[in-house]
Amino acid sequence: MNKHALYHKSDSLYSFAFDRDTAELRLRTARGDVASVELIYGQKHAFCIRRKTAPMSKAYSDALYDYYTIRLKLDDKRLAYIFRMTAADGKAYYYSEDGATTEYDFPTAFYNFFQLAYVNSNDVMPRCEWLSGAVVYQIFVDRFFRAEKTGADGKLLEDNGYIDLKWGAKPTPKSFAGGNLRGIAQKLDRLCGLGVNTLYLTPIFTSRSNHKYDISDYYNVDAQFGGNEAFAELMEECKNKGVRVILDAVFNHCSEDLMQFRDVCKNGAASPYHDWFVINGDKPTKRPLNYEVFAECDYMPKWNTANPQVQEYLCGVGEYWIKKYGIDGWRLDVSDEVSHEFWRMFRTRVKALGADIALIGENWHDSRSYLRGDQFDSIMNYAFTKAMLDYFAHGTLTTEQLCDKLNELLMRNMTQVNYMMLNLLDCHDTHRFYTMCGKDERKLLNALAVELFMPGATMIYYGTEIPLEGGYDPDSRRCYDWGEHAFADKVKDLLKHKKLRALCEGEVKFSCENGLFIVERKASGQTATLFVNNTDEQLSARGVTVPRQCYRITVE
Amino acid sequence: MNKHALYHKSDSLYSFAFDRDTAELRLRTARGDVASVELIYGQKHAFCIRRKTAPMSKAYSDALYDYYTIRLKLDDKRLAYIFRMTAADGKAYYYSEDGATTEYDFPTAFYNFFQLAYVNSNDVMPRCEWLSGAVVYQIFVDRFFRAEKTGADGKLLEDNGYIDLKWGAKPTPKSFAGGNLRGIAQKLDRLCGLGVNTLYLTPIFTSRSNHKYDISDYYNVDAQFGGNEAFAELMEECKNKGVRVILDAVFNHCSEDLMQFRDVCKNGAASPYHDWFVINGDKPTKRPLNYEVFAECDYMPKWNTANPQVQEYLCGVGEYWIKKYGIDGWRLDVSDEVSHEFWRMFRTRVKALGADIALIGENWHDSRSYLRGDQFDSIMNYAFTKAMLDYFAHGTLTTEQLCDKLNELLMRNMTQVNYMMLNLLDCHDTHRFYTMCGKDERKLLNALAVELFMPGATMIYYGTEIPLEGGYDPDSRRCYDWGEHAFADKVKDLLKHKKLRALCEGEVKFSCENGLFIVERKASGQTATLFVNNTDEQLSARGVTVPRQCYRITVE
Repeated sequence: MNKHALYHKSDSLYSFAFDRDTAELRLRTARGDVASVELIYGQKHAFCIRRKTAPMSKAYSDALYDYYTIRLKLDDKRLAYIFRMTAADGKAYYYSEDGATTEYDFPTAFYNFFQLAYVNSNDVMPRCEWLSGAVVYQIFVDRFFRAEKTGADGKLLEDNGYIDLKWGAKPTPKSFAGGNLRGIAQKLDRLCGLGVNTLYLTPIFTSRSNHKYDISDYYNVDAQFGGNEAFAELMEECKNKGVRVILDAVFNHCSEDLMQFRDVCKNGAASPYHDWFVINGDKPTKRPLNYEVFAECDYMPKWNTANPQVQEYLCGVGEYWIKKYGIDGWRLDVSDEVSHEFWRMFRTRVKALGADIALIGENWHDSRSYLRGDQFDSIMNYAFTKAMLDYFAHGTLTTEQLCDKLNELLMRNMTQVNYMMLNLLDCHDTHRFYTMCGKDERKLLNALAVELFMPGATMIYYGTEIPLEGGYDPDSRRCYDWGEHAFADKVKDLLKHKKLRALCEGEVKFSCENGLFIVERKASGQTATLFVNNTDEQLSARGVTVPRQCYRITVE
Repeated sequence: MNKHALYHKSDSLYSFAFDRDTAELRLRTARGDVASVELIYGQKHAFCIRRKTAPMSKAYSDALYDYYTIRLKLDDKRLAYIFRMTAADGKAYYYSEDGATTEYDFPTAFYNFFQLAYVNSNDVMPRCEWLSGAVVYQIFVDRFFRAEKTGADGKLLEDNGYIDLKWGAKPTPKSFAGGNLRGIAQKLDRLCGLGVNTLYLTPIFTSRSNHKYDISDYYNVDAQFGGNEAFAELMEECKNKGVRVILDAVFNHCSEDLMQFRDVCKNGAASPYHDWFVINGDKPTKRPLNYEVFAECDYMPKWNTANPQVQEYLCGVGEYWIKKYGIDGWRLDVSDEVSHEFWRMFRTRVKALGADIALIGENWHDSRSYLRGDQFDSIMNYAFTKAMLDYFAHGTLTTEQLCDKLNELLMRNMTQVNYMMLNLLDCHDTHRFYTMCGKDERKLLNALAVELFMPGATMIYYGTEIPLEGGYDPDSRRCYDWGEHAFADKVKDLLKHKKLRALCEGEVKFSCENGLFIVERKASGQTATLFVNNTDEQLSARGVTVPRQCYRITVE
């Protein structure tokens, strides 16, 4: 028995309420080390005298570990338990808070059993169901499409003098191409036709930049994008067509143009807003930089989210766009640098307006500390992005290693969270995936197919379907090419499968057979299976033949 | 390299802010497996291009693992890092979110470095300093001492008709001996003389039972204990003598006598309080039991702490006794069965009245999910209790194993939490430690010495100093014996050391030398060392000779 590998903690992602009446438990062991695992469980206050047992099953394996899991219907909401493992040599071990032991003293178990002490309804991580079926189209607004508003006389009613990038020319960090919200509204049918049912727009509020991650007015849509009026129109179109909308909440930092920051620049410590930011001194100075900022950008002062006034202000912003315009969710920019305390408050305020409002963090790393049910629903799944790059673009993962890695990622979070993950291959902050895999449309399509089969939402960065190429920012933000593209039909054919019940609700299983990467999703009565051939030879498994660099999907 | 043993997670008890400017990091490896560990770190947004390194030191070891730690002063509050380990064979490994690897690609480190993304001041677990120097005397009020209030004519002003247990007779589950708050006030000097500086009283509010864990009026002290007037007098005495007071917050359940529950019994679902409890049906019934209760006690209905009205009510209670009477903390009964969401709100409300108000959970198990800074300060350290029993009473731990176990317990929580732990050998819910170790005063004293040297508060159950014996409830709740007891002087001599700076602030190190169990506490300029001989032979180490079953303390 490899005792070093064993892992379980009470009231954690190894021990959580799947719903009000169901406990889900996981036990980690060294891979291949244990022959079987049994759960010994009972009501917490009676565990010393009355217990039951149930077998656990090996549900996932990664490079180092096996994960045994069980879902347990709870008669009583107070669960105490330990594990009994049988090693390959037949020797049995108990596993409790005191570790692996050959004997276990049940009469004093109250000192060291594991527990889910009581399932309080308000602590259960709820599932925002629609995310599991979402095909999310991310739009960098300035580069998607421009539709101009004209008067009855055909005269242009909006200023277009700021546009300095010819549509299709190479973007620079500061160039404006003129894409706007009316442009998106005009192309909505086309997006729906592709299979999109959700939009995620990079920031749309008033800002001097093209990306608008430096916001100077959180209550108004930038005039360049058409202002609040154009947004209201877009929202109406979206509601009519059943398309949900996620906006970008930039609450880590703002623009130096923000009224409150300008007030501090003018009045220093005497400003009522001095503590809204993190300033070491009276007035903010850039040389030396005496206030905290995003990254090293002095035009983006950091919000002090420990300040109750700031908390109130930003919660107010979060509520406003839901209440007044009916948006469906917030993507939370640089969310890992914003305080947990603020996010807890933000969640409480936002979810009071609708349990289905999605909250998705831009966390690039293992984010279990944000995903316990008190803060976000999920995050942008960059760890998945990296696995896809390593498998399809860099070739540094074998198919077996890909299975291991994806299982490892599933075991980073509670099951509910996995079903809300925002999966992605690329975005405005990365190279285009298409470019990373050597502009091989077949690899891009295969990667998209894998993404589609991941539990959670499928995010597609605008232009992936044509496909747009591009390196790092600003190259990843090229103007959309509105010509005809055969690849789009392939993406459309693929995305159709997102409507399958198995792809929304189904359990997931990754495997490698005869060189094929296989993803199986199983819901009651339906099994959808994806076969991906990431090689240059034709391969077959389970009676399905897949040409080189292609995928096949079967549904039963 | 034992890869299975490696453990580290971002933003966890392996990666936390020790204070606003200091990060504390821990890396777990297999015991004896690694020759050295280095931290490679940098500002999060610049880590790919600019990094520093710092050595980590092996601070703790338990049966299976070594724990390497480092405290890092932060110039920038955004920390990214990975580890570099050198194995015994000289081979080097990097350790990141992608596990242990022989190569590491720094240019794409943003995908898999570890991080403390930003130290927000409101997320730092603060330290309630006074707990580190507290000697807490737990009193089961009915059994400590009775002082009667008499009028000018010497006539008894209080009812004593409820008393049915002759002082010193064997207690039964329902007997009343008459101990009260004026009795405690009268004995306060004696407790101070012993070295006590904090009282923790089991519940004092109106209740029909002798233990009063079934409360029917949270705003009034039970008349048996002298009512609110006697409590005000006790608080004044305590303030005068510099003694702090912790009360028992029974917020998991109440008494069936509570007005609100009685209203539900009368009016069923029509009662405004129906949802204050967890009732499956209209009116509560006992057979079959259709409402949730504590353990299996039908007279103790469970509060529904998911109900905002209940949350408000209980927070109000929590605030009232602080604001009106100035209590110093709450011990939270059955706290692991109460919702996390409620405790977060409770902490916010209570700490707004004073950052120094202590919040201590009655959690018997690994409680990391309650000890992240958003809920409790600490818990009753029952895992320590078990280690003491195993070493001194059961003899199932060797001295080496005791060191391992105590190190393991230290590594269960952030360092700040360790310095707030409420250590205990026994309480009203366990057998008396004295009885468990065969009524051997020497073993009890040795165990008390170890408890005193643990970081955190030292809790002493009333009567330990004489020492009282007793089995499980109700036997552990015997009446205090007010005769003379030589053992009390030994306890007094021991407790004097709690005033040492090293015992309050000092780092702790457990070791075993020549059969002696040694605890070293080191603060700047002061080292206090405890030598415990748990054998029947005289032992020596470091020039200190310790007779069998004795302890010695040196201070330098």
